[in-house]
Amino acid sequence: MKRRAFLRAAAASFAASSIAAPAVAQSTPELKWRLTASWPKSLDTLYGMCEDFAKNVADSTDNKFQIQVFAAGEIVPGLQVLDAVQNGTVEMGSTAGYYYWGKDPSFAFTTAIPFGLNARQQDAWQLRGGGMELLDGLFADFGCYGLPMGNTGTQMGGWFRKEINTLDDLNGLKFRIGGFAGNVIKRLGVVPQQIAPGDLYPALEKGTIDAVEWIGPYDDEKLGFSKIAKYYYYPGWWEGGANGHLLINRSKWQSLGKTYQTIVTTSAREAGLRTTAKYDLVNPTAMKRLITAGTQLRAFPPPIMEASFKAANETYIELAKANARFKRILDSIMAFRQDSYSWWQVAELSFDLFQVKMLGRS
Amino acid sequence: MKRRAFLRAAAASFAASSIAAPAVAQSTPELKWRLTASWPKSLDTLYGMCEDFAKNVADSTDNKFQIQVFAAGEIVPGLQVLDAVQNGTVEMGSTAGYYYWGKDPSFAFTTAIPFGLNARQQDAWQLRGGGMELLDGLFADFGCYGLPMGNTGTQMGGWFRKEINTLDDLNGLKFRIGGFAGNVIKRLGVVPQQIAPGDLYPALEKGTIDAVEWIGPYDDEKLGFSKIAKYYYYPGWWEGGANGHLLINRSKWQSLGKTYQTIVTTSAREAGLRTTAKYDLVNPTAMKRLITAGTQLRAFPPPIMEASFKAANETYIELAKANARFKRILDSIMAFRQDSYSWWQVAELSFDLFQVKMLGRS
Repeated sequence: MKRRAFLRAAAASFAASSIAAPAVAQSTPELKWRLTASWPKSLDTLYGMCEDFAKNVADSTDNKFQIQVFAAGEIVPGLQVLDAVQNGTVEMGSTAGYYYWGKDPSFAFTTAIPFGLNARQQDAWQLRGGGMELLDGLFADFGCYGLPMGNTGTQMGGWFRKEINTLDDLNGLKFRIGGFAGNVIKRLGVVPQQIAPGDLYPALEKGTIDAVEWIGPYDDEKLGFSKIAKYYYYPGWWEGGANGHLLINRSKWQSLGKTYQTIVTTSAREAGLRTTAKYDLVNPTAMKRLITAGTQLRAFPPPIMEASFKAANETYIELAKANARFKRILDSIMAFRQDSYSWWQVAELSFDLFQVKMLGRS
Repeated sequence: MKRRAFLRAAAASFAASSIAAPAVAQSTPELKWRLTASWPKSLDTLYGMCEDFAKNVADSTDNKFQIQVFAAGEIVPGLQVLDAVQNGTVEMGSTAGYYYWGKDPSFAFTTAIPFGLNARQQDAWQLRGGGMELLDGLFADFGCYGLPMGNTGTQMGGWFRKEINTLDDLNGLKFRIGGFAGNVIKRLGVVPQQIAPGDLYPALEKGTIDAVEWIGPYDDEKLGFSKIAKYYYYPGWWEGGANGHLLINRSKWQSLGKTYQTIVTTSAREAGLRTTAKYDLVNPTAMKRLITAGTQLRAFPPPIMEASFKAANETYIELAKANARFKRILDSIMAFRQDSYSWWQVAELSFDLFQVKMLGRS
């Protein structure tokens, strides 16, 4: 037998023996994967979500599929999760897609856009309204498969050392604000700042920045902003519901097979659902503690909200002109938003408003 | 060897061989279970949830754990799911726990109580706030293990042939309304009626009943109520978020082992999350169709809402006096509700209200 023929025969034999192997061995191999998170361990709600997810997968597979979770900075910095998954440094990551809007502004849609959707609407659009299919092409272009995992709910508007009463008060204001929203709010004269979480407190204390937005009462309380900024504004109109993603290296995802793909999907959904539930449990009591300690709650004045809404729309129009994918996803999400709120205001909103009215009396 | 000693030795040998069997065979046996649903197939959102759940389990186990889904009436009637699971007729069921409030009023807490929690709050209370632990004793007393699965969101208040302007308009009104809520609304003079879904339309058409509440626009539209009752009221204050349960026969649940227990849990959570997402997708467009066809939307007038709130509280006080478990769960849910809404009104509600204001202008 010539060498080439032998190799062909060996390959055929290998293929045949692969096919003959027991189905169970093919569908559930022993795997050890690594997950890198954008979250430090101190962000226990989001970091805990990754651990819950990994435990779900391990428990569903009799520990055959083990995923080790690494906090931000242990393997790569928190804002390089997409890159690490794309280039195969790790098999998977937990992150917020909008961190990467500089690569393509369409990444903003994966997490939240200013005046976009609330948490349930983001789920509905992604899981049932064609959103995941639209976002899949984006993730694919970056070598990833993306599964929604975790939503914080509507975030707070941040901590301000001085009251914001008019649009003039925003002019020149140095404000730490997450990526894409900075692109909108700078139209109002704000100077958006990108600062790593560990540097936020000293920056605000020294006056390097005038204000900082982070997440909500529970996570914000731990960073101690209330000690140096008295006014806590709401709502975080740029994050009506910030949705995280589990990113999986796309060829690794395709190698998994249906059994593990299903287990990863249901495990991520379960961990994500319990994360929103955790925020909804711990934010109310954190807010009570903050108010007791002297924090002053303030709503953004309507003229500021309305100017921001206008600035967001202007930003969208510009980006849609320059980027066909951005336009395609924007059109989908905006049509969904219009329909959804026309229904939301009927049953959901009137129920919640009545509850607030009655419970506020007691 | 005497006969009794032989049996002991055989038993010991059997036990030893069980222990020696491969771990994989113990944790993932071949199983075929049956699930009976409270939902007819025409209620495609809720029935579809059961099929999604069964598919998740099959796909997670390489089809080793197969669950066959039966619609209401195929094995037992829709309101006898708890009994069928308890007595082992089937291994599992999909139902709304409040159907069984006649057995113990605490069952109301598993689904929704009048002026209780919205969908996200119900998740937070159950999954993170100790709710599942409190409800577990109730399910255990009825031979079941209960997993939350699916939430409709805030339901509509129902279809009325005449406008409801004052409390007097409720007096003597024959209203089809789900179990526990009937117990509250009868304090306002309403005569609550229990009628099977298939009989609702003719009952309303013939005037046997004056009004009917069912679920929301998508499900209601299919039953055709809009053709005979013009006024569609909101909100369904007795169901701020109606939460379903997957019930599993408790000894069957305990026999599953950790691997299958985890798979059943994550599969139910995934199917449940996608059910709320489905409702949030299809309700808006159904509402648009109904309004186009002539349906008149009406909010329950504030005096009726306030009288209903008072009637609910009176009901709770009476039941709590008579039933220690009801009191224990009520105390937990009411404390959670107070805290939760004090936070909900800040970020979530102000975001949603602003969105509705701006989108209503376009």
